[in-house]
Amino acid sequence: MVSHSLADLAKVLGGALEGPGDVTVEAVGDPAASAVGEIIVWREETPVPADAAASAVVARHGVDCGGRPVIRVESPRLALALLLAVLHPEPQPEPGIHETAVIDPGADIAPDVHVGAHATIGRARIGAGTVVGPGCFVDDGVSVGAGCRLFPRVVLIEGTRLGDRVRIHAGSVLGADGFGYEPQPTGLAKVPQRGGVEIGDDVEIGALTAIDRSTLPGSFTRVGAGTKIDNLVQIAHNVQVGRCCFICACCGIAGSTTVGDGAVLGGQVGVRDHVTIGAGAQLAGASAVYGNVPEGATYGGWPARPHRQFLYIEASLRRVPDLLKTVKELEKRVAELEADAQARGTPDA
Amino acid sequence: MVSHSLADLAKVLGGALEGPGDVTVEAVGDPAASAVGEIIVWREETPVPADAAASAVVARHGVDCGGRPVIRVESPRLALALLLAVLHPEPQPEPGIHETAVIDPGADIAPDVHVGAHATIGRARIGAGTVVGPGCFVDDGVSVGAGCRLFPRVVLIEGTRLGDRVRIHAGSVLGADGFGYEPQPTGLAKVPQRGGVEIGDDVEIGALTAIDRSTLPGSFTRVGAGTKIDNLVQIAHNVQVGRCCFICACCGIAGSTTVGDGAVLGGQVGVRDHVTIGAGAQLAGASAVYGNVPEGATYGGWPARPHRQFLYIEASLRRVPDLLKTVKELEKRVAELEADAQARGTPDA
Amino acid sequence: MVSHSLADLAKVLGGALEGPGDVTVEAVGDPAASAVGEIIVWREETPVPADAAASAVVARHGVDCGGRPVIRVESPRLALALLLAVLHPEPQPEPGIHETAVIDPGADIAPDVHVGAHATIGRARIGAGTVVGPGCFVDDGVSVGAGCRLFPRVVLIEGTRLGDRVRIHAGSVLGADGFGYEPQPTGLAKVPQRGGVEIGDDVEIGALTAIDRSTLPGSFTRVGAGTKIDNLVQIAHNVQVGRCCFICACCGIAGSTTVGDGAVLGGQVGVRDHVTIGAGAQLAGASAVYGNVPEGATYGGWPARPHRQFLYIEASLRRVPDLLKTVKELEKRVAELEADAQARGTPDA
Repeated sequence: MVSHSLADLAKVLGGALEGPGDVTVEAVGDPAASAVGEIIVWREETPVPADAAASAVVARHGVDCGGRPVIRVESPRLALALLLAVLHPEPQPEPGIHETAVIDPGADIAPDVHVGAHATIGRARIGAGTVVGPGCFVDDGVSVGAGCRLFPRVVLIEGTRLGDRVRIHAGSVLGADGFGYEPQPTGLAKVPQRGGVEIGDDVEIGALTAIDRSTLPGSFTRVGAGTKIDNLVQIAHNVQVGRCCFICACCGIAGSTTVGDGAVLGGQVGVRDHVTIGAGAQLAGASAVYGNVPEGATYGGWPARPHRQFLYIEASLRRVPDLLKTVKELEKRVAELEADAQARGTPDA
Repeated sequence: MVSHSLADLAKVLGGALEGPGDVTVEAVGDPAASAVGEIIVWREETPVPADAAASAVVARHGVDCGGRPVIRVESPRLALALLLAVLHPEPQPEPGIHETAVIDPGADIAPDVHVGAHATIGRARIGAGTVVGPGCFVDDGVSVGAGCRLFPRVVLIEGTRLGDRVRIHAGSVLGADGFGYEPQPTGLAKVPQRGGVEIGDDVEIGALTAIDRSTLPGSFTRVGAGTKIDNLVQIAHNVQVGRCCFICACCGIAGSTTVGDGAVLGGQVGVRDHVTIGAGAQLAGASAVYGNVPEGATYGGWPARPHRQFLYIEASLRRVPDLLKTVKELEKRVAELEADAQARGTPDA
Repeated sequence: MVSHSLADLAKVLGGALEGPGDVTVEAVGDPAASAVGEIIVWREETPVPADAAASAVVARHGVDCGGRPVIRVESPRLALALLLAVLHPEPQPEPGIHETAVIDPGADIAPDVHVGAHATIGRARIGAGTVVGPGCFVDDGVSVGAGCRLFPRVVLIEGTRLGDRVRIHAGSVLGADGFGYEPQPTGLAKVPQRGGVEIGDDVEIGALTAIDRSTLPGSFTRVGAGTKIDNLVQIAHNVQVGRCCFICACCGIAGSTTVGDGAVLGGQVGVRDHVTIGAGAQLAGASAVYGNVPEGATYGGWPARPHRQFLYIEASLRRVPDLLKTVKELEKRVAELEADAQARGTPDA
């Protein structure tokens, strides 16, 4: 661990330091259980608890920090991201190729790449500074950009192209065959899947996520730059995901669907094939999306509807049991009125 | 790339050639961006765009192809499958066992099998022409048929049997323990899972799919011949899936359930344990299936119902907010009628 | 196979033997297709079929076993679990480290550990009697207890700690980064995930399940002792799962959510972030949980509601189409009454 002065950290955070700049800290602490030598990030508007032992605090302007040295920031959440990166950097393996890795003589690997134990690399291109974790498989015809990180057991099949600074967590599979078959007289014909997968710069992909290759040679299933995808997500063949989207865990996006820039899919969302999710659309977790979603719209429910309509129908539904009683009552009252009217006889014209 | 004459391709497709049979093509093109030397598959009824540079077209009878050489077919979709197989065949690794693979001396491996780097094969049987990808694990007591393809990092646990021409995509796991526990005075007893997994001929299984072994020794979790299973699917212990089913991505089928021949499960369908999905049944994507589904029925919704009933209830639901207003209005009108009747006094008998 | 006497097995099951104790059996049979030398577990109250060839039966008291030797028990299901463990024990690999495994010199591995082919172990601690399967990856800073079993291709990232007797099935990933990003002027800042994953004693985790590391250094995503987790489950960063929970396949639990002791999640349940599932709560399969669930409550539905309320609303929904007709009819009848009243003129005051 390396210690950092509050003066330096205030610069990193773009924050205003209150207190001595030469105090040093060496770790980000848990606000509920901090220790001397730590800095905590306080997200609340309430005062920092008196018993917090941390040597310094990051907090919004105006929050009572009990006289501790404090770096004032506008977004404590962003400050936490920046502080963790400085005080707890991710371990970086040394460049070099492990002796148990199997590298095709035709592979084009930049000199400062790290390749872990039992990795297999075919006639592929690996860019500068990239880390290929233990047990990864990089097929013939794959291209990986610079500064990427493949965690252990990632599989990149033929036709996959990664941009720069792409991170893929353990066990994910890019480039498996899309799911396509056609009936023929003798049974089913498999539609060979001969396209690829193209992942833009700065994309992060979680663990155990599958992104299938597209069908036509020269075409790609695409994920745009800056998009973040969580664990156990399925992205089918020919899907086009835009830039800077968020796709939470357990989502499934069926074939040939388009997801516009900046769209947000909550966890476990299912999207059917051949539809368009507009740019900036937001889909509530666990929604089942059966049709197009307009740009910027918020949808939710089963099946997914505009969120307000979903809430309105939901609220109405809760009133249905009472409604059934009311109508039964009304039927009785109307029958009595009818009997009453009949008893009075036909009115004079 | 190898070029093929249109005369040859017309034979492969069982189509009628219009134009010179000695024109050659070497790739399937993208209809929206084709080049000379390519053949495109035109699925529409509209004319092929004038600016398509492709050297030839596959189209239905009667579609205007602008004078280009054309192979007329009944199903352009099937033609695409057949064309891709001929013009863009999947790379086939050479037979041979990689020097880093670890093979048990008791393994029974046909002479023309390919075993990739870092694969591990126990006392298992591997049939002729099968490809075992890099990093696969084939346990003791596993049997793999002829002409199978295991993509990288597939795991086949003890008791798994594959038929012929089975394809399993990267990272899938067959034969893990089913999920079974029984309460006992000291806590929970694990129910040991000592059965196997049996996969029929011509089955294809996507990436990151799990099929659990059955419970009783000598019994099997089964997937029938010709069935196709997509990515990230869960098939629990003792499940019996029939022949020629389609199970789309992200489905989960709970323990001891039966899925009849030819059933189709859309993406993200959940099916509870111990139920029967009839042969030829179709389940809409994201349905939650809590009970038996009759043969040939189409079900959908949460919970799943006959599809017509689902649509009818869905349509009714959208009318509930208006219904609430109507009933409120009716209550007022009935109250007025009642006041009116009361003002008139008791009718004469 | 080793044969066991019924006298011995009766002791193991804590059951009452009816018949000769020196009869031996060597396998658990399928009740529908048993053979001589087998013992079957009969779960029904009906008589054991006359044609069952099994040499012995386990059954509840009072069930007619046709004169076969029988061990009487209270719970045949528990008896099955115990019998399978005795008659069909799981194969145990011999202690020893495979020559193709790559072990960091700083690793602390107990002498009787088994490490399979192509496994990679960093500066980690592995407890006595643990089996590390082929192709597993155990990162620097990981701690694995005694008597654990890691099936093939399991990945344990830096910061993961397993208790004793933990079983993790093939392909699962513990310790991947949680899904956290914060907006900043130049785009998005990744929130580094620098915590760990802590798994209690006697936990079992299925295949292809992901449990993410927590955010703050020194903190943990936790799974309590005795909890059982099925295949393809996602547990996000900072989640706290209690003791002795059951989490069925395909569930997703979003970030920072708490699941109390003994809670049961059916298959494919989704739980949103930052909520609390009370101890002993039961969530029906495929439920979408958007809020807190009280202790001991049973919830189900989309969105999840108390189960009775769910059933009540469900039943009401099925009556909505009829209700629409009834109200339309009522409107007509009221209009007629109104016309009738108007024809009568204003009543005398």
